[in-house]
Amino acid sequence: MAARGRRTGDSSATRQAILDAGRTSFAESGFERSTLRSIADRAGVDPALIHHYFGSKDGLLAAVVTLPLDPAVVLADVGAGPEPLGHDVVRRIATAWTTEPQLVDRMLALGRTAMTSEHAAELLRDQLGRWLLPVIARLAAQDQRELRVALVMSQVGGVFIARYALRIPAVADLSVDDLVTAVGPTVHRYLTGDLMPASSARRSARG
Amino acid sequence: MAARGRRTGDSSATRQAILDAGRTSFAESGFERSTLRSIADRAGVDPALIHHYFGSKDGLLAAVVTLPLDPAVVLADVGAGPEPLGHDVVRRIATAWTTEPQLVDRMLALGRTAMTSEHAAELLRDQLGRWLLPVIARLAAQDQRELRVALVMSQVGGVFIARYALRIPAVADLSVDDLVTAVGPTVHRYLTGDLMPASSARRSARG
Repeated sequence: MAARGRRTGDSSATRQAILDAGRTSFAESGFERSTLRSIADRAGVDPALIHHYFGSKDGLLAAVVTLPLDPAVVLADVGAGPEPLGHDVVRRIATAWTTEPQLVDRMLALGRTAMTSEHAAELLRDQLGRWLLPVIARLAAQDQRELRVALVMSQVGGVFIARYALRIPAVADLSVDDLVTAVGPTVHRYLTGDLMPASSARRSARG
Repeated sequence: MAARGRRTGDSSATRQAILDAGRTSFAESGFERSTLRSIADRAGVDPALIHHYFGSKDGLLAAVVTLPLDPAVVLADVGAGPEPLGHDVVRRIATAWTTEPQLVDRMLALGRTAMTSEHAAELLRDQLGRWLLPVIARLAAQDQRELRVALVMSQVGGVFIARYALRIPAVADLSVDDLVTAVGPTVHRYLTGDLMPASSARRSARG
């Protein structure tokens, strides 16, 4: 095996440098077109160190698409205050966007990677399901939990892209309070409302 | 100037080949990292032909981010039927996704390009504003039109990404009817409901 490069003295910094290089490379060039050699060059390390810390390019991708915040922490005690549940969810997420350093940049990189690689999209989808489903499902009505979580993600993700990727002024300029007022009722309905699809409703009406 | 390549005999096919090559290249590699040379190679034409048909790489980008459907056509006579306005908007858009050949692929390419290039995002934002604003504004309540259009785009775009890019089964498996039932009320509220931000509401309450 080749020499392990100059950064072995500080393994935490080396791991972080590889992670940052992978995140940037996947977001800029897509997962499939990023090579271990180019990621190692960007990080200033020997490619063998990527194997050492992440096992493979797939392992590095799994680390890159890890959500930068733990939804269970962001949404801890959500719904305990006076605000409706959906409004509270939007407030906590939008507050994280506006206060957590680097969160927006990391989420943008994650979105870019998932948009340009089916494999990355699959990993992100699995992560979102594994992490968000239990947190949201605990709050939501008991029926159609997967659909409720997916609809919340679609609206929150859509606002994130409009605000931070496309930077549409009408959404980018909203305060956290304004976002809660505009989008909170949507998320509240997805979590707690009657979402029975028309086909199921027809079946119920017949049955 | 260099020879104009082998396809000058059929200018419409040549223009389309360049457009397709640009769309793929921008989506895969991002606008900034795509070169006229690589796009010309992919299209099998001389780079001078890109200048001839599109003026510049910017001009090609403008052609690539042109929406593949005219919103004024998709939404013609929207709201004329018995269904609430927001439900009808979702039905027409979701029907286009499921029936128009190539529409989904072109929208995915457009989204990828916009996610990986600030310049492309700016062009897409301008196009959406110029095309969608008059169509939607004609239907929506008269106040806060930019916000209403941006919120509709955020929800419809979020569902598109969940359904076609991330392929989350709970959303990807919905029929058009189910999408209308699940998302129609959201779009209806964004178009016609009271979206007054909390800060404005507080000002009104004081005044």
